[in-house]
Amino acid sequence: MACSLARTLDIAGEWWTPLVLRDIWRGRTRFDEIQDNLGVSRKLLADRLETLVREGVVERVPYQERPTRYEYVLSPKGKQLWEAFMPLIAWGSRWTSGEAGPPALARHELCGELMIPRVTCSHCGERLRADDVRQEPGPGARIGRGTRPLPRPRAASTA
Amino acid sequence: MACSLARTLDIAGEWWTPLVLRDIWRGRTRFDEIQDNLGVSRKLLADRLETLVREGVVERVPYQERPTRYEYVLSPKGKQLWEAFMPLIAWGSRWTSGEAGPPALARHELCGELMIPRVTCSHCGERLRADDVRQEPGPGARIGRGTRPLPRPRAASTA
Repeated sequence: MACSLARTLDIAGEWWTPLVLRDIWRGRTRFDEIQDNLGVSRKLLADRLETLVREGVVERVPYQERPTRYEYVLSPKGKQLWEAFMPLIAWGSRWTSGEAGPPALARHELCGELMIPRVTCSHCGERLRADDVRQEPGPGARIGRGTRPLPRPRAASTA
Repeated sequence: MACSLARTLDIAGEWWTPLVLRDIWRGRTRFDEIQDNLGVSRKLLADRLETLVREGVVERVPYQERPTRYEYVLSPKGKQLWEAFMPLIAWGSRWTSGEAGPPALARHELCGELMIPRVTCSHCGERLRADDVRQEPGPGARIGRGTRPLPRPRAASTA
């Protein structure tokens, strides 16, 4: 599908994958540590990690010899992917926490403050709102599944 | 799981759900339109929409009487969820497009420019980098699956 969202989901769109990325980002880099923390099966975790390594999101790095043992670290591509997930965490904190409040807060170590990851325009810096953004065909556009031209605008409501 | 990411995935983490949100955001608001565009089964689409309506992300609005027919629109909660997905689309455009270039570009209608959705700090406005953000326990924190204390820091690499 000629769609950047679908392609992203192909890499990171399965349940558990974002949680695996989060564990690695937080410094839980060994297979057994991640498996123990998430409580998933070894097979599921191995499958997810295999995809992430194949896609260059996670790198498998030896940390011990005889026998060789590996840990998992985020590549530059993986760090940017994780950055892109931060607003989804913020959304969950905002909309799903209930009275208890959010389970986790985020601190930006560059400025030192607790903060909320915002989605902003790279050009003007303003916060992006769904109603203010429009997609246009890019150089790699193709017409097909998921990318068909939009239906013509309709007159409002019960016309 | 006391984790805003897991809670977000419970609502929007299944394959196809973000693509359904995208279609609705782009103005493809009727069941048959979405189904035709994505090429998914009616059952799958009905399941996804049911979850989104139950979670208050999408609203089911009548657009015709006798017989009553409904269309789907994003609620304020849903618009913010869609905003949070924009950086994932940008990541896909950056890392998965190949030589053809991205299938779609994004224009910010407030400033009028083609742009890239960025993830920035709500406090200082700087772009967030994975290495510069740290999670801390929030008021709703609980120790359990997915949220166990981190292992102690280790000496670097093959120590």
